[in-house]
Amino acid sequence: MSGEEGLVSVGSRPLSDYVLSVVILFNQGVKRVILKGRGVNISKTIAVYNAVKDRLGDAIKLENIEIGSEYLNKKRVSYIRIVLSR
Amino acid sequence: MSGEEGLVSVGSRPLSDYVLSVVILFNQGVKRVILKGRGVNISKTIAVYNAVKDRLGDAIKLENIEIGSEYLNKKRVSYIRIVLSR
Repeated sequence: MSGEEGLVSVGSRPLSDYVLSVVILFNQGVKRVILKGRGVNISKTIAVYNAVKDRLGDAIKLENIEIGSEYLNKKRVSYIRIVLSR
Repeated sequence: MSGEEGLVSVGSRPLSDYVLSVVILFNQGVKRVILKGRGVNISKTIAVYNAVKDRLGDAIKLENIEIGSEYLNKKRVSYIRIVLSR
């Protein structure tokens, strides 16, 4: 896969899975990776960002952070969207 | 209390406590309120922001969001800092 943008949705898998997904996307030439997490996974989403930042350092840039809420199965949940670029 | 900036640290109390704290600070004339949450409380911090936004709407502005990690009792924890202004 290659292209402009990749999305990594952070869920219940181990943190390292998501870190690896982000690193692989960037290595494949994707210019921008969006990390998204909802509800209880928001903390993990930020932990993924921190771990990616540790590994890739200045090679990636934190482009934007968006927070808000959305409806999922009629329940309102908070989310975070972290946009990374290189 | 009145002044330029107020800090609300989101912890284990009910969400509505923190929403009320933010609303009271703004009503007291504080120009900027910082919502801060760590680890598992990050999701709740964003939920507080959403609830405040519901109540105060365009009267407040989302000025900045910062994410990162810090050491607390020798353990690394993620945090979020949401800066609201009016």
